[in-house]
Amino acid sequence: MDMTLPEHATIIEVGPRDGFQFETQIIPTEIKVEIVEALVGAGLRHIQVTSFVHPRKVPQMADADELVGRLPSHDDVEFNALALNSTGVRRAQAAGLRHIEISVSASDTHSRNNTGMSVKEAVSQAAEMIQLARSGHMHIRASVQCAFGCAYEGDIPPERICDIVRRFLAHGVDALGLSDTTGMANPVSVTRLLELLLPDIGSIPVILHFHDTRGLGLTNVLAAMQCGVTCFDTALAGMGGCPFVPGAAGNIATEDTVHLMHAMGVATGIDIGRVAACSHRIEKLLNKTFPGKIHRILPANIITT
Amino acid sequence: MDMTLPEHATIIEVGPRDGFQFETQIIPTEIKVEIVEALVGAGLRHIQVTSFVHPRKVPQMADADELVGRLPSHDDVEFNALALNSTGVRRAQAAGLRHIEISVSASDTHSRNNTGMSVKEAVSQAAEMIQLARSGHMHIRASVQCAFGCAYEGDIPPERICDIVRRFLAHGVDALGLSDTTGMANPVSVTRLLELLLPDIGSIPVILHFHDTRGLGLTNVLAAMQCGVTCFDTALAGMGGCPFVPGAAGNIATEDTVHLMHAMGVATGIDIGRVAACSHRIEKLLNKTFPGKIHRILPANIITT
Repeated sequence: MDMTLPEHATIIEVGPRDGFQFETQIIPTEIKVEIVEALVGAGLRHIQVTSFVHPRKVPQMADADELVGRLPSHDDVEFNALALNSTGVRRAQAAGLRHIEISVSASDTHSRNNTGMSVKEAVSQAAEMIQLARSGHMHIRASVQCAFGCAYEGDIPPERICDIVRRFLAHGVDALGLSDTTGMANPVSVTRLLELLLPDIGSIPVILHFHDTRGLGLTNVLAAMQCGVTCFDTALAGMGGCPFVPGAAGNIATEDTVHLMHAMGVATGIDIGRVAACSHRIEKLLNKTFPGKIHRILPANIITT
Repeated sequence: MDMTLPEHATIIEVGPRDGFQFETQIIPTEIKVEIVEALVGAGLRHIQVTSFVHPRKVPQMADADELVGRLPSHDDVEFNALALNSTGVRRAQAAGLRHIEISVSASDTHSRNNTGMSVKEAVSQAAEMIQLARSGHMHIRASVQCAFGCAYEGDIPPERICDIVRRFLAHGVDALGLSDTTGMANPVSVTRLLELLLPDIGSIPVILHFHDTRGLGLTNVLAAMQCGVTCFDTALAGMGGCPFVPGAAGNIATEDTVHLMHAMGVATGIDIGRVAACSHRIEKLLNKTFPGKIHRILPANIITT
């Protein structure tokens, strides 16, 4: 067997958005800023810091504009945010962000439950958002949710994902995301979709976003790296989930993913102990334990912010 | 990338031994028998039911002889046990078992802490145990603990594992086990050891035993299957660990491993829901939650024993 792996991988920390958003206890903006800064100190160079969504829908993200305004700028760090409509893109831009993620579900049921729109309507709206972001010279990542299946609809044909991706590319995007929103991907389905998709997209980077609902998160990272993918969304401590999909829980943990990579000789530039210190801090603040493994076997006092 | 996988895999359920042994609350023999029978009902055809060790050392296993005597026999089910010395082999044989596992650590520190013997002494003792078991016409599995590293000694050179395996083979064994006792294996180290070992051992089956301490358990299963290995030890609900190695926790969960395999089209003959029902039963009995994922997202009432 030939275990061919990349030399380097890029981690996009999405905990401050995908992890924090479902916590009912509102985390003070000041603490969010400190944690983002501590993640920068841990070597993270790509951090999704918030989402620009309606504060009634996601109260934890009500401070999005203020949070972005309070983040110190770093030449080598990309802060990005998620936007679900044109208002969100405008807010992100006004707050000073240069990187935006937009997102469309490949499942009609999930899309309707999540946004009230069919996939077709959501793709049309995405085209407007892309145009708006392009006119503001933002770096645009366009992502497909439920790219590996849907808790409501089951398998999603890979061809449907490729169709959506082709439309994204036609409108001009800088990066593509494939999200396993409900933790239904497995190494074979990941390999199958990537083998179909990668030859079509040229040099546009692909970012994979796995949830560990069924415990297959890191097996999917391994399969994707064997296909040549080098960019992954992760969340500190394995925080996160999706409230619109029953049973969907936990992004793959940043520490666990980085540990997998480092153990196999794939460099990330990330200090696992420092990420774990952030995980301990957020667990203490929220008085709960998140499902990641590495932060739990590392002592809590390795480093503090 | 070529994701070549076997069509079938064999699961050896080790929960009743490697899972139960570290529980301080003594599980009644009657319940153990019921759980083993429920696991047979779930399709498990290889179950490690106990270990023949000194009852002062592992009080949970004090009923080993009685337990084996009370298990109904099934033509197509292999019940096996672990023995750590010749007394254990004799007890297993007297109790009527036809399958025995013996085990040697590849780490001197781990071996001394665990058994009071150096690796060299343990290998010599193993030779006597193999001879004894062979004279009783038992099926012998000989395993190497700490085959992928040791919490005390760090990396263990693959050549040392191959040396121990060669001695096992010279004495005549029916199967080989490689145990990642402290959860230190990763897909690259698994691939490396298997590529070195497999060409030397002919048709003797190799069983891999992974712990999920650092979250890499299933990535190692994937890598091993890509190398052609088809036999894996697992424990219901992800029970288990090793009290002699700090931080070592949890075998890979039977349900999660079988889910990975089924999701990728690898058949096992095992009913995940029925295994999960056993996991719910043992969690309720011991009033704790084990780290496996699949049993937690399956309803507890799918099936009962």
